[in-house]
Amino acid sequence: MSCCNQKTCPPTPTYSVVGTPQGVSAVQEILALANRPEVISFGGGLPAPEGFPVREIAEACEWVLKTQGPRSLQYSAVEGMPELRELLARRETEKGVPTSADEVQLTTGSQQGLDLLARLFCDKGSKVLVESPTYLGALSAFKLSQPEFVELPVDEEGLNPAAMGEECRGARFAYIMPTFQNPTGRTLSLERRKLLAEKAREYNFWILEDNPYGEIWYDEEPPVSLRAFCPERVVSLQTMSKVLAPGFRLGYFIGPKHVLAAMAEMKQAMDLHTATFTQLVTARVLNEGLFKEHLPMVRALYKSHAECMLKALDDFMPKRDDIEWTHPKGGMFIWLRLPESIDSADLLKKVLATDVPAAFVPGAPFFAHEPKRNYCRLSFVTVPNEKIIAGVKSIADTLKSML
Amino acid sequence: MSCCNQKTCPPTPTYSVVGTPQGVSAVQEILALANRPEVISFGGGLPAPEGFPVREIAEACEWVLKTQGPRSLQYSAVEGMPELRELLARRETEKGVPTSADEVQLTTGSQQGLDLLARLFCDKGSKVLVESPTYLGALSAFKLSQPEFVELPVDEEGLNPAAMGEECRGARFAYIMPTFQNPTGRTLSLERRKLLAEKAREYNFWILEDNPYGEIWYDEEPPVSLRAFCPERVVSLQTMSKVLAPGFRLGYFIGPKHVLAAMAEMKQAMDLHTATFTQLVTARVLNEGLFKEHLPMVRALYKSHAECMLKALDDFMPKRDDIEWTHPKGGMFIWLRLPESIDSADLLKKVLATDVPAAFVPGAPFFAHEPKRNYCRLSFVTVPNEKIIAGVKSIADTLKSML
Repeated sequence: MSCCNQKTCPPTPTYSVVGTPQGVSAVQEILALANRPEVISFGGGLPAPEGFPVREIAEACEWVLKTQGPRSLQYSAVEGMPELRELLARRETEKGVPTSADEVQLTTGSQQGLDLLARLFCDKGSKVLVESPTYLGALSAFKLSQPEFVELPVDEEGLNPAAMGEECRGARFAYIMPTFQNPTGRTLSLERRKLLAEKAREYNFWILEDNPYGEIWYDEEPPVSLRAFCPERVVSLQTMSKVLAPGFRLGYFIGPKHVLAAMAEMKQAMDLHTATFTQLVTARVLNEGLFKEHLPMVRALYKSHAECMLKALDDFMPKRDDIEWTHPKGGMFIWLRLPESIDSADLLKKVLATDVPAAFVPGAPFFAHEPKRNYCRLSFVTVPNEKIIAGVKSIADTLKSML
Repeated sequence: MSCCNQKTCPPTPTYSVVGTPQGVSAVQEILALANRPEVISFGGGLPAPEGFPVREIAEACEWVLKTQGPRSLQYSAVEGMPELRELLARRETEKGVPTSADEVQLTTGSQQGLDLLARLFCDKGSKVLVESPTYLGALSAFKLSQPEFVELPVDEEGLNPAAMGEECRGARFAYIMPTFQNPTGRTLSLERRKLLAEKAREYNFWILEDNPYGEIWYDEEPPVSLRAFCPERVVSLQTMSKVLAPGFRLGYFIGPKHVLAAMAEMKQAMDLHTATFTQLVTARVLNEGLFKEHLPMVRALYKSHAECMLKALDDFMPKRDDIEWTHPKGGMFIWLRLPESIDSADLLKKVLATDVPAAFVPGAPFFAHEPKRNYCRLSFVTVPNEKIIAGVKSIADTLKSML
């Protein structure tokens, strides 16, 4: 058998059900679009690089290696480094929900957190409640655990807990991004947060609160975490990717200790622990007052981009009842609704073929079930204001030509 | 319902089959043992901290932030940073297997690689071939995908491919650590590597070659990677943890491009990508000649500890036919066989209670099926030589008292 030339006719492994290649994913398409330099891309969910505290991180790296030495390069505990857990707990407490360090579990980015929680709570066919639309990266992560998705009722203000009923009973968890949601930019009101907590108790489901953007508010702090209303069945997932650096891959769960213990056991098998070095560098940067000095700059930067895009949409979009967009109070995204006759993927192709090529993410992959094809997700944070104006005008002009 | 005080009587989530907490794992027990300062611990699989190139890493951090700036802190491609993939491919080529950068896929430590490969290739009940004994962390990772393990035939030289037969047919993959194996320290001969490759073709299975220790040879390079004999159905998993720093969590696959494409798709859903910053720091350190200057020091350090432990075992262990140990030519572990009447977990408890408390890992959890209870894994690399002597003597004295 060994003389058969299998190099020229390579064997294909038998892939698992969840491992069977699907080809290029929607997220990968986004990243590919964002990387072509001639395109004005509103596609990526990348934070603005000018918001990265490069100098502070350089100083922290030097300090960590000088004072911690080999400890910063060694294996470490699956729960995370104690000094970082302490700082993250203190920050959460400052934001209104008293939290101790042992209620914090580090993850390798919040994407790992999404996979980990679904894997911990779901068998094949388990019911998972999701918003409509919801973060497509979460859908990708959850699908590895083969759950059944149930889409939650929404209205113009986003998730509508008042309409949640028996279809929620027995769900393993509800995946909710209540603050500056990806993709809509919408924020759940305080009243709806309270009501959602009541529904979780009434119908006996857990909540995975995903909160990547909560620190990036423009004018006022968003309502408090769902943990304030339902600490016993909420696990909150946060990240350093938007406030510090996505290239560190640092996320963290805050939740009940008994659930964190189960998470730690699974995470040990998944990647032993999250990188020691970047945890210590992050702890140093936070301890040196990053949030106080650095975040106001990031918030102002993102706000100015958001205002620029909102004005450009006002200026250039056709005035019709069936064209509208969200007005986020923070975060990175505007959700644009087009007439039902328009497929946003077609619009994207046409805009990319113009003299001012621009990109966005068509809305369809953000829906767990029946995709709505007349939505676009627009991200404004990495694009200079003059390009935001040119890009929105190009999209609007192309849209007009299709109507 | 919301008035019920669920805070004082917390609800328990419904965990998945693989997520159901098992309590403290063997690996966690090891880490706990290794952390008690009064114990002479041969338990951990930690690399020696004096082998970490702290100064080189500090210089590389500074260089990366100065020259790459925000790029080093941004999201990046799931495959890994091009400059690092290039260097790793070149290194593999130097070691005797021509490799291109697009045959390299970064992972968040090799532990993530173990989980990823099993998840990609296995459904519940899929057949997976494992050595006996095998790395317990791999068993933990694989169990998340619920395969059926089949233990491969072994003899005094380790895995015995000549005895592999029909029981291997249809396996999704064989998990093999051919070089300085964890836990035995054994190395598969060149002849056995060739024969294993033939068996993979004959019985149509893939091979996951785990190679964390291959660079840590004492006197001569180990035989070449299994990819040399069977490139079309071997995926080789390597790591920076033993040659640079485990605290970076950097591992990588080398394998056929079509399999790497499927891996990339799954990894995207698992954690988007491995940390950009630590990849670039690692590329800088490697480019500055780490392997040439740094590895000889690490090899000499580990060799001197291995020799010290082997001599101590010779000096103190009872001279009996049913007490023997392996003589590794590299890596971090010695595998000690005790008389069948001795349970190594009992021995551990007794040694820990002596005036010279010492620790090792009982062998049982390294077996996929029927555990053999009369083995110990001894790691020597983090223990100073005088403590190695004292620790081995304490273990030998305690053993004598039990015989």
